[in-house]
Amino acid sequence: MKKLINDPKDVVAESVAGFALAHSDIVRAEFDPTFVVRTDAPVSGKVGIVSGGGSGHEPLHAGFVGFGMLDAAVPGAVFTSPTPDPIVEATKAVDSGAGVLHIVKNYTGDVLNFETAADLAEAEGITVASVVTDDDVAVQDSLYTAGRRGVAGTVLVEKIAGAAAERGDSLDAVADVARRVNSNVRSMGVALTPCVVPHAGEPSFELAEDEIEIGIGIHGEPGREKIALESADAIVDRLLEPILADRPFESGDDVLLLVNGMGGTPLSELYIVYRHAVAVLEKRGVNVVRQLVGDYTTSLEMQGASISVLKLDPELTELWDAPVQTAALRWGR
Amino acid sequence: MKKLINDPKDVVAESVAGFALAHSDIVRAEFDPTFVVRTDAPVSGKVGIVSGGGSGHEPLHAGFVGFGMLDAAVPGAVFTSPTPDPIVEATKAVDSGAGVLHIVKNYTGDVLNFETAADLAEAEGITVASVVTDDDVAVQDSLYTAGRRGVAGTVLVEKIAGAAAERGDSLDAVADVARRVNSNVRSMGVALTPCVVPHAGEPSFELAEDEIEIGIGIHGEPGREKIALESADAIVDRLLEPILADRPFESGDDVLLLVNGMGGTPLSELYIVYRHAVAVLEKRGVNVVRQLVGDYTTSLEMQGASISVLKLDPELTELWDAPVQTAALRWGR
Repeated sequence: MKKLINDPKDVVAESVAGFALAHSDIVRAEFDPTFVVRTDAPVSGKVGIVSGGGSGHEPLHAGFVGFGMLDAAVPGAVFTSPTPDPIVEATKAVDSGAGVLHIVKNYTGDVLNFETAADLAEAEGITVASVVTDDDVAVQDSLYTAGRRGVAGTVLVEKIAGAAAERGDSLDAVADVARRVNSNVRSMGVALTPCVVPHAGEPSFELAEDEIEIGIGIHGEPGREKIALESADAIVDRLLEPILADRPFESGDDVLLLVNGMGGTPLSELYIVYRHAVAVLEKRGVNVVRQLVGDYTTSLEMQGASISVLKLDPELTELWDAPVQTAALRWGR
Repeated sequence: MKKLINDPKDVVAESVAGFALAHSDIVRAEFDPTFVVRTDAPVSGKVGIVSGGGSGHEPLHAGFVGFGMLDAAVPGAVFTSPTPDPIVEATKAVDSGAGVLHIVKNYTGDVLNFETAADLAEAEGITVASVVTDDDVAVQDSLYTAGRRGVAGTVLVEKIAGAAAERGDSLDAVADVARRVNSNVRSMGVALTPCVVPHAGEPSFELAEDEIEIGIGIHGEPGREKIALESADAIVDRLLEPILADRPFESGDDVLLLVNGMGGTPLSELYIVYRHAVAVLEKRGVNVVRQLVGDYTTSLEMQGASISVLKLDPELTELWDAPVQTAALRWGR
């Protein structure tokens, strides 16, 4: 295992500390228990938004804390859900009285711990709503999941819900728009290489020298099939086919296309993927009117990528375009 | 070799096409010959800035084309200088009559081809100034270099020179500020793994299972020494020691600290590096007042990082803070 780390047990704490130090204009970190929160939280009258989950997917979620997106992020150990305690503390830190939305990727541990935290926060008088993301079309159930997994589409849910909260929507309205994004986005990923969890020290799964895995999860959990390496264009076809079959994006639809790197993929390759994905969608008459290309929901140093397609409507487009000021997404302000 | 590519010979063309498609609000690509240029070039009355070099270092340089930074970028084949012809065409495309600055990383091929291009452009009546960057303290001469190599500090030169051009500085003044940044920045890198050039198909150098290379070049060319893997903090100490020895940053100095990922390094690890680098600098009384953490000057999928330290003064700080609107750097507008 080759990593730029100190003691594996300190990886999350040291990384969060460095993150908070680098972005002290936007966030501060708490360590007992650990969460990252906007410096101006709670924002008066605004619905608070908290997300979180296992570490190892950076910039998800701490990289999305800031104006127009999340109010707090709760990082667990690598690939391990945070416990309820820090989720409760983050929820309290961002509540201004307008209520708090939890955005939770659909993994059994995350769902359970966020539910417990929501109950505990409600017992302290905070109104909490929850939205579970499950955009991955690869598998119905999975190693850590009942139902579909929440993957890179979660970034789009967080951005758009964050914009709705920032413009002053109520908790119910913010939760509704988050659910609308989740129901309109579909994702599918591919791994070229496995990744190594620091405290495990060994690859989380095996791939032969010429083998890739289609439908990979963001923790390296099994996808649909292992196949021999193919051209980028052929892989893109394989990723888009189940996305388009699952939610029939139609001719004339406007979509946002997210090409997400898994952490170890050169940016140049993501643009090669993007180019062909646009060509496939446009051949069907689907218009790519918004886009995002880069590392947004990663799996440590895994090489690979995922494609997410979100059907837009005028309101979702306006919320996507709204100003955002976070470490990892920043425009319009 | 596992890459998300089609034919290795099409990597640059397809990647540039995808890049231009994704960022059509900022840039357009030309393909005969190949360069990337601001959609609004030439900007009336403004000094044009052109950079370029071998591909494989994305987002450098095309990711920095846009308002407040570069006017055009010229990508060569992977790790291979562009020929003079596209440099001349890019220079012509961005000249508004105020002259054009070439920012060139110090590699023999790049220096030669940019010199030839400058001569050809001058013959067509365009005034060209050139600044060569050589911020890497690792080695005096190298595989492709007489003198020091230009590495991630080049990003800082491009950002600050771009801001000077945007505020209306003359060609001489923009070139002067670019040289001032270069003379005040020092960098040093480490590789944990090698990278594979697509058309070569094999790693560009070898590292044993527990071995890293201190002082690595951005093309995998030799650094100072291969050593056994150490903790992140020990590696940071090794990278900062020659930086601080080479240009004695003093107590009370304000600096910009850039922790740059080589392409395959998880973002979380870069923040672990950042955290300790700040601690080392602050122990010397050096104040980290600006920072940048992420993949800015990469070596394909190489795992590793570099540290750059730039001594700031009020003018350089103001130019750093000025608005920028590119694919890879964006703030304040």
